Amino acid sequence: MRVVVALGGNALLERTERPDADIQERHVLRAVDALAPIARDHELVVTHGNGPQVGLLAAESEKDPDLEHPYPFDVLGAQTQGMIGYWLLQALENALPARGVATVLTQTLVDADDPAFGDPQKFVGPLYDEDTARRLSAARGWTVRPDEKGFRRVVASPEPRSIVEIAEVDALLAGGSVVVCAGGGGIPVVRRPDGRLAGVEAVIDKDLTAALLAEHVHADALVILTDVPAVEIDHGTPRARPIGRTTVAELRALSFAPGSMGPKVEAACRFVTATGGIAAIGQLGDAPGLLAGSAGTVVEPAGGGRR
Amino acid sequence: MRVVVALGGNALLERTERPDADIQERHVLRAVDALAPIARDHELVVTHGNGPQVGLLAAESEKDPDLEHPYPFDVLGAQTQGMIGYWLLQALENALPARGVATVLTQTLVDADDPAFGDPQKFVGPLYDEDTARRLSAARGWTVRPDEKGFRRVVASPEPRSIVEIAEVDALLAGGSVVVCAGGGGIPVVRRPDGRLAGVEAVIDKDLTAALLAEHVHADALVILTDVPAVEIDHGTPRARPIGRTTVAELRALSFAPGSMGPKVEAACRFVTATGGIAAIGQLGDAPGLLAGSAGTVVEPAGGGRR
Repeated sequence: MRVVVALGGNALLERTERPDADIQERHVLRAVDALAPIARDHELVVTHGNGPQVGLLAAESEKDPDLEHPYPFDVLGAQTQGMIGYWLLQALENALPARGVATVLTQTLVDADDPAFGDPQKFVGPLYDEDTARRLSAARGWTVRPDEKGFRRVVASPEPRSIVEIAEVDALLAGGSVVVCAGGGGIPVVRRPDGRLAGVEAVIDKDLTAALLAEHVHADALVILTDVPAVEIDHGTPRARPIGRTTVAELRALSFAPGSMGPKVEAACRFVTATGGIAAIGQLGDAPGLLAGSAGTVVEPAGGGRR
Repeated sequence: MRVVVALGGNALLERTERPDADIQERHVLRAVDALAPIARDHELVVTHGNGPQVGLLAAESEKDPDLEHPYPFDVLGAQTQGMIGYWLLQALENALPARGVATVLTQTLVDADDPAFGDPQKFVGPLYDEDTARRLSAARGWTVRPDEKGFRRVVASPEPRSIVEIAEVDALLAGGSVVVCAGGGGIPVVRRPDGRLAGVEAVIDKDLTAALLAEHVHADALVILTDVPAVEIDHGTPRARPIGRTTVAELRALSFAPGSMGPKVEAACRFVTATGGIAAIGQLGDAPGLLAGSAGTVVEPAGGGRR
């Protein structure tokens, strides 16, 4: 089987933790311990979030006195693909000494006229008081919005359309390497009218990109790892209960929180619909069970999975 | 032919310029304009320095109030491979729309007992007054040394021994892709007694790594781009004159500045000695001439090049 696994950004750093390198490296080791058994039996692509990490680098860049303009989100995303991609690369190599591993930078193409650019909604970077937020908005052309505790910048979160370097990812997989790519949803780029690629200020949902990646490398399974054991019906209410094996039709009839489980469910449904493969959502420690259909929420095509 | 080109970190940012993203992207476009004709006729690997860029990120990390310890140089190096690797990737794709391009993160293995670790000499990060330097040295275990204008941290610059992901680089080249890798001399790692790879606080000379890379991918030519048209005999004196076609024996009989031309000459000599290929040192605008042997300093094996 060919398997794509998506690690949440919070799998590498919990909300309450300091973002120091040693702490994140410890999380990476734990994640790779859970993934190594999958890599022993299957072709494996690992992708990952970058929320806390890109937030840290954005805040640093913004305060850098040597810069006239802070680095844009395509550049910051590329930095996090380097950093997180390195940690995963080294940990995978250590866990799988007989196996090649490669971290490949990938850009995700989005539509220049995606409606998200006209109505940016994704909070990024540090918290400001209202005055500072208004000043930065005027000086830098940022869109700012009120968050729970103050004001923050928002950027567009457009739909991922394709992964520019998919052929290189595919070639490395075919050669037997484990591949790390598409971190943080991919470096966001558009194709300009003259045909050239150009970076944009955006953040792409990493689970939706993982679904696209899984479809385009012809994966048999997409495993989305998060910090809960399964998707729940009536989540957050006394009637909450986990969803086990399910179908796209069943999931599409329910609704999920747009900021958290929504994109994961959407990604799982898209992958299963597009390919007839299976998609699973659950927690890191259950990774082998998720793939075997014995843990978490497993989305199968109508009529059952290919396995 | 298979060609490895090494771009100086200063090719992407001049000493007097602001390190903003747009300025570096403009330099990348200019560099890629010079490299694209080579890629049209040959297999091409591009590597690059990261001095100004890793210095910027080190300074940001050090001032980050959310971090207990600033990110170490392996992690910062990985960030710069992501950032500079992205700019080169996109510019190469735009210049060569019919060609695959891949940026692959690579670690460079060094010896844990390299003598450089006992006597670190490479200046990194910002300038401090003596008191601050002594305090940071005590608090963080840094080695600090006086620079021209104050004190700076120094880290080891050990000898590159191998490139961990060389097989993946080779596979991508064989598949026809232009490959960007080994930026900043590679992410510095050692192999611990238990066999596991681990990052180290070091900075590896990018030209020496380029020579190793060129040898290990069985390149026919190594082109080292810098900001002068050729290596000079009696550089900085009234008798200075450029060296054109030369041999390893001729160059080894001369001496060059350790911080600038020395490593480039050493890298060229190592590559030619190890492989019998040719190595050239010169400026960006002369890239095709360097490869053809009609510009810059061209080091050929005794008895003439393979071409």
